[in-house]
Amino acid sequence: MSGSWLDEIVWNSHGLAPAIAQDWKTGEVLMVAWMNKEALRQTKQQGHAVYWSRSRQKFWRKGEESGHQQNIKEIRLDCDADVILLKVEQIGGIACHTGRRHCFFRQLQGDEWETVDPVIKDPGSIYK
Amino acid sequence: MSGSWLDEIVWNSHGLAPAIAQDWKTGEVLMVAWMNKEALRQTKQQGHAVYWSRSRQKFWRKGEESGHQQNIKEIRLDCDADVILLKVEQIGGIACHTGRRHCFFRQLQGDEWETVDPVIKDPGSIYK
Repeated sequence: MSGSWLDEIVWNSHGLAPAIAQDWKTGEVLMVAWMNKEALRQTKQQGHAVYWSRSRQKFWRKGEESGHQQNIKEIRLDCDADVILLKVEQIGGIACHTGRRHCFFRQLQGDEWETVDPVIKDPGSIYK
Repeated sequence: MSGSWLDEIVWNSHGLAPAIAQDWKTGEVLMVAWMNKEALRQTKQQGHAVYWSRSRQKFWRKGEESGHQQNIKEIRLDCDADVILLKVEQIGGIACHTGRRHCFFRQLQGDEWETVDPVIKDPGSIYK
């Protein structure tokens, strides 16, 4: 029986589903990454977000290098069972590899994507 | 030059990108759907969300049947330029086809997905 909750998810043809990380207190959408079944199992078991990196084709233990782990407060699933929503405590207050609070720092203004959120910490000092 | 902002998005092999609709006031993540270039162009132009339905392979003018349109307040793009975030005013306060405020009404509790948010309006009375 254990693991059947994982089988209720509609994984795509690559065995993946998008996972949204949302700040559990502010409601900010921090980032979107992908998970496979094992990544989500580990996320639940370890209590912090583990994604599947499509570009590197391996597990991505968020915060392993940067220290910016995402502690899991809630795991939710949508009506179609193909999108995961994580409510997380973002350690260090930085989710984005650019050193910003979140990844959605570009806003459409007219016909331009404008960067509207500041870099909090130089990525060079995050990833050594 | 017009439309070049659309070309900055990294569309997947099907020409699509996931779009998150977030309540612009409460921060609730309402739903995730897919957009192609034309859907996003129309979303911007019309001021309310137009998605691409993968199952029906046609444009999905959110709210066309239900009246539950999503008025666009902001359009954002993530660092990888492959996920769109819409900050919306959800007309009727119902984003989900199940008649709930949002689609993420199932929460993992132990090894079970539990429904934790109520139906606000019977879907039978939404879709006539």
